[in-house]
Amino acid sequence: MDNLTSPTLADIRAAAARIAPYARVTPVLTASALDARVGASLFFKCEDLQLGGAFKFRGACNAVWSLSDAEARRGVVTHSSGNHGAALALAAKTRGIPAHIVVPEGAVAAKLANIERAGGIIHRCAPTQAAREAECAKVQQATGATLVHPYADARVMAGQGTVVLELLRQVPGLDVVLVPVGGGGLASGCAIALAALAPGVPLWGAEPAGADDAWQSLQRGERVTGVQPDTICDGLRATIGVPNLALLREHRVEVIPVDDAAILSAMRLLWAELKQTIEPSSATVLAAALAQRGRLAGKRVGLVLTGGNVDLDAVQALLTRVRP
Amino acid sequence: MDNLTSPTLADIRAAAARIAPYARVTPVLTASALDARVGASLFFKCEDLQLGGAFKFRGACNAVWSLSDAEARRGVVTHSSGNHGAALALAAKTRGIPAHIVVPEGAVAAKLANIERAGGIIHRCAPTQAAREAECAKVQQATGATLVHPYADARVMAGQGTVVLELLRQVPGLDVVLVPVGGGGLASGCAIALAALAPGVPLWGAEPAGADDAWQSLQRGERVTGVQPDTICDGLRATIGVPNLALLREHRVEVIPVDDAAILSAMRLLWAELKQTIEPSSATVLAAALAQRGRLAGKRVGLVLTGGNVDLDAVQALLTRVRP
Repeated sequence: MDNLTSPTLADIRAAAARIAPYARVTPVLTASALDARVGASLFFKCEDLQLGGAFKFRGACNAVWSLSDAEARRGVVTHSSGNHGAALALAAKTRGIPAHIVVPEGAVAAKLANIERAGGIIHRCAPTQAAREAECAKVQQATGATLVHPYADARVMAGQGTVVLELLRQVPGLDVVLVPVGGGGLASGCAIALAALAPGVPLWGAEPAGADDAWQSLQRGERVTGVQPDTICDGLRATIGVPNLALLREHRVEVIPVDDAAILSAMRLLWAELKQTIEPSSATVLAAALAQRGRLAGKRVGLVLTGGNVDLDAVQALLTRVRP
Repeated sequence: MDNLTSPTLADIRAAAARIAPYARVTPVLTASALDARVGASLFFKCEDLQLGGAFKFRGACNAVWSLSDAEARRGVVTHSSGNHGAALALAAKTRGIPAHIVVPEGAVAAKLANIERAGGIIHRCAPTQAAREAECAKVQQATGATLVHPYADARVMAGQGTVVLELLRQVPGLDVVLVPVGGGGLASGCAIALAALAPGVPLWGAEPAGADDAWQSLQRGERVTGVQPDTICDGLRATIGVPNLALLREHRVEVIPVDDAAILSAMRLLWAELKQTIEPSSATVLAAALAQRGRLAGKRVGLVLTGGNVDLDAVQALLTRVRP
C-alpha cells in the first residue's frame, strides 16, 4: 500500500495489528431512552474514549508506524485545526519522533491544548486552505517531515477502518452503520471494511447541512469544492477528499444532511442519556438516525461517536439553545 | 439475611447473581491526563453508565428481587429526591410491581424525570426528613408496600457491594478504593466486599465538606445528625445511616471531606478528560484523590463514579465557575 491508492481489507487488518499496542478498543454503549426515540436498537461506538479523545488516533498511529526508520526520524507534519493534529502528535510521541502541526487561527481551545499536551510543534497560519497548505509545504521543505494528510491518505483511511473491525466484533447482526462525514477519511475506511466483512450492510454518512459538500458532490456527480462551511461541527468543515469521494461513490454510501438545530438537540440527548461529553460532530449520527426513524424501525444500528473534545466554556450556549 | 443485619460477602455474591439479568457490568475507564494530575494510576468505575444512570439500581434491584411473591405484589415504597427513587422504580418495573416514590420539593429535574419515565408513582412532600417519613408511612399503610430504604437496608447495601466485586475482577492489584459517602449504603457494601476479598486494601470515603456528618461522626465517635447540608452534591446530602456508620467504623473507612470548589473543579476535569457527564456527587472521589496526592503517589487507585444524572441546564453555572 502506498499512501495514494485505496486501502484494502488486508491493509485495515494490518493497521489494526500495527496500532493495537497503542490504541484503545473503545466500548460500545447503549441507552434504552435513545432506542425508544428512534424505535431501533442503537449501538454507539465511543471513540470519544479513544486515546486523544477522538477516532483520529487510529489513522495517525497507523501512518506513523507505517514509516521506515529513516522517514520516521525526520518526523511528520500535517495541517489540522483539531483532532487529527492532536492525534498525530500523540502518535508521533509513541514512536519518539517530532510532529509539526500547522494550526489555522480560530481552532477550538480544547483541541489546541491537546496538541500542545501531546508535544506537537505548533505552526500558526491564516484560516484558509491555501495558507494551511503553504505553511505545511514550508515545514516539509525545512525538516523533511512526511506529510500525513487528515483524510486523503490510504494509511489514515486504513487506520480509521479499524473502527468497523471492532464494531462488527462487538455487535453481531447490525443492519446499518452511521458515521459522520467531513473529509471522508472515516467513511472511506469504514465503507471498505463493511463491504468486505458485512456485504449488504449499508454505510450512511451524516453530514452537517451547513457543510454538505459530500452530499452535493454525490448529487451532482462531481466534487463540489465551493461550499463555505457554516456549522457548529468544527470537526466536519473540511471538503470531501478526492479519493474519499471516489470511495463513497464506489461503496454507495448514502449521505444524510442534518442541520445544526437537529445536531444540537441530538448532542444534548447524548450528554443526558449516554452520559458522554461528545463534541457536536459526533451528534450528527444520532440526528441522522432520528431524521430517518421510519427507515430504521426495528433495526440494529451502529453509530460511531467520533470524538469528545468539546469546549466546555461554550457548552451552555450550545446546550441551552435546545430542549429535545 | 433480613434487612436490618449487616450483609456478608455471601449476601453480596447472591445479590450479584440476583441482579445479573437486569444490571450492567459497567466499564472501567482511564485517562492519562488525570493520572498525571494525581501522580497515580486511576481506574474509574463508571456507574454513570449503570441502568438509570447511577449505582443505585444495584441495591434497588437486589431489594426488589429479594421479596417473596406475596410481598412483591403489594409493591415497594421509598423516599428519595433522586437516583434511589428512579432506581427503585426501574427495578420494580423489571418485576412488574408498583413503586411508590415519595419525593420532597426541590429535587433535580433530571432525576424526577427519570422516576416518572421508569413508571414510578410519585408522592410529593415537604423537603424535611419528618415529612418524608410521614408520607412514606402513609403510603405503606394504604398499600402494604415494602419500604426499601435508600441505604439503611441490608439488601440495598449488598446490592451496592457488587460494585467492588466487579471492580476487583476488572482491575487487579488495586492499592486503595474511593467511593462517595452520603447515607453510606455504597460505602457499607463496598467495605464488606473489600475486607473479604482484598483484605488490607483500604476504602476511603469522599464526603462534601458541606455535608460532612459521616466525617464528624467518625471524629466524635457518635452519630452526628444536626448537620444542615450545604453542598452542590444533591446525591450526598443524606445523614449517614445507623448501620452504615457502624460498618464504616468496623472497617476503618477513612472519610475525606472535600469542599464544593474542589468538587466542581474535579467535575470539570472528569467531563473534559474522561468524557463522562457525571453529576457533582461523583466528582468527590477525584477531588479527594487530588487532595491526597501525596499518599497516593505511584499507587493503583479505584474510584467509583456514582452517577451521571446532572441537570444540563444548570451546567454552565457549575462548569464555568471553575477552571482547573
